[in-house]
Amino acid sequence: MNRQMEIICVGNELLIGKTLNTNAHWLARRATIFGMLVKRVTIVGDNVDEIAGAVQEVLDRKPKFIIITGGLGPTFDDKTLEGVSRGLNCKLEVNEKALKMIREKYETYVKEGKMERVELTPARVKMATLPEGAEPLPNFVGTAPGVKLKIAETFLIALPGVPPEMETIFEESVLPLLREEVDGNTFFEMSIYSYGIIESELAPLIDQVMHDNPYVYVKSHPKGWGKGMEIHFSTSAKESRTAKNRLGKAIVQLSDLVQKKGGKTKSKKKGQ
Amino acid sequence: MNRQMEIICVGNELLIGKTLNTNAHWLARRATIFGMLVKRVTIVGDNVDEIAGAVQEVLDRKPKFIIITGGLGPTFDDKTLEGVSRGLNCKLEVNEKALKMIREKYETYVKEGKMERVELTPARVKMATLPEGAEPLPNFVGTAPGVKLKIAETFLIALPGVPPEMETIFEESVLPLLREEVDGNTFFEMSIYSYGIIESELAPLIDQVMHDNPYVYVKSHPKGWGKGMEIHFSTSAKESRTAKNRLGKAIVQLSDLVQKKGGKTKSKKKGQ
Repeated sequence: MNRQMEIICVGNELLIGKTLNTNAHWLARRATIFGMLVKRVTIVGDNVDEIAGAVQEVLDRKPKFIIITGGLGPTFDDKTLEGVSRGLNCKLEVNEKALKMIREKYETYVKEGKMERVELTPARVKMATLPEGAEPLPNFVGTAPGVKLKIAETFLIALPGVPPEMETIFEESVLPLLREEVDGNTFFEMSIYSYGIIESELAPLIDQVMHDNPYVYVKSHPKGWGKGMEIHFSTSAKESRTAKNRLGKAIVQLSDLVQKKGGKTKSKKKGQ
Repeated sequence: MNRQMEIICVGNELLIGKTLNTNAHWLARRATIFGMLVKRVTIVGDNVDEIAGAVQEVLDRKPKFIIITGGLGPTFDDKTLEGVSRGLNCKLEVNEKALKMIREKYETYVKEGKMERVELTPARVKMATLPEGAEPLPNFVGTAPGVKLKIAETFLIALPGVPPEMETIFEESVLPLLREEVDGNTFFEMSIYSYGIIESELAPLIDQVMHDNPYVYVKSHPKGWGKGMEIHFSTSAKESRTAKNRLGKAIVQLSDLVQKKGGKTKSKKKGQ
């Protein structure tokens, strides 16, 4: 079973440090919780060649899902679908289903008094111009539809960059597809906090716990002198009981080892 | 003059959506302000092959700077330097200068009463084990030094993932190097806010302004119905006056075009 996902984020605003990439964070979190393995995130600018190149490279690694965010809107710098079609070497064409979605959206805007009349300008038709073979995904929050493509065994899904639009399309149209693929595997995690032991003393203890608990991943996150360390335990399993047993066993072992070195562990941060 | 930079962030915590990638955002912002062009950000997990692969791919694109963050600490999952050395096909070796930095750091910790005695455990020596030919960069905030390597015309710089450590080493050791390379080019930006015009009506107006002002990049960021749109103008120049003239001219032109379409522009968000 291929549970691998890659995320591509498109937008100059990310590369000039204007916008913090909360989309990748949100997507990685959601996908992980539902049992996917996010292998890589790639951020590129609003440039057709850069997008096409990234799509080809990611596709070569054959993940089950590629999620691309950003660049689906009506403006000249919304270049994601042009980049995808160049990367896949396929045509762009006006998709009638997408055009209908967009027309209906503008009819709603007219009814709501937000616009005077529906006019399908080139900028609006652009949002319905998809790589051939693509299926549009309804956007209940904004105007530009999401896009779904299947390339061999890989699903390529393009979502708008505006967070509520991205999140809604993901929840409505992507999550059901993803749940089918991961076959009930779910991600579980717990953290404990250690005090009185520094990271370089903790390192060999974590090594030992990871060795003795092959299905558990353990990672320390130092919080600065005197603030202790967060130690994060995670695993993926079909049964919540299996996961909890695994995490519990690893946590008990590490806590014992830390105490033998003169440190302490707690289940919550100091002061919480 | 090659002003291109790529950023690689290493850490499973980024791929499971546990940690928001503020490091890439901070680095992209700082580098852009000082005139660099950040072309791509790549996030990979704590895996030697993934890191090595990303390093090779980025190096093939020949940016002037590669900044890698995360994975320099003492724990087993700090794999960045192993990944870099595999990617560059060079040896890892204990770097005497780095070892001295680390020893002095622990001596300070002993003096401050944070540790009983200095002991160079394998986990600590690991932080001084660098790709051959590397130069360690002093870490005034934490323990693990940064790392500088030159590969043909590219500087590869590895920084710790803990934000204050990463930021301090960047400011102290990377910024001076970067300023030499960019030859005084600086990034300038301004935003205006438009109301009463929707993005698909604005799109052709931005096209026209971009066409008439080839050195200015314009991007609209919709804020949701009724909240207007941020329109962001940016340019790079050696002289602040040149940049301001360029941005001013583009803003005046776009404001006029928006008004002709029945919209309004303001220099601040409504309510500010």
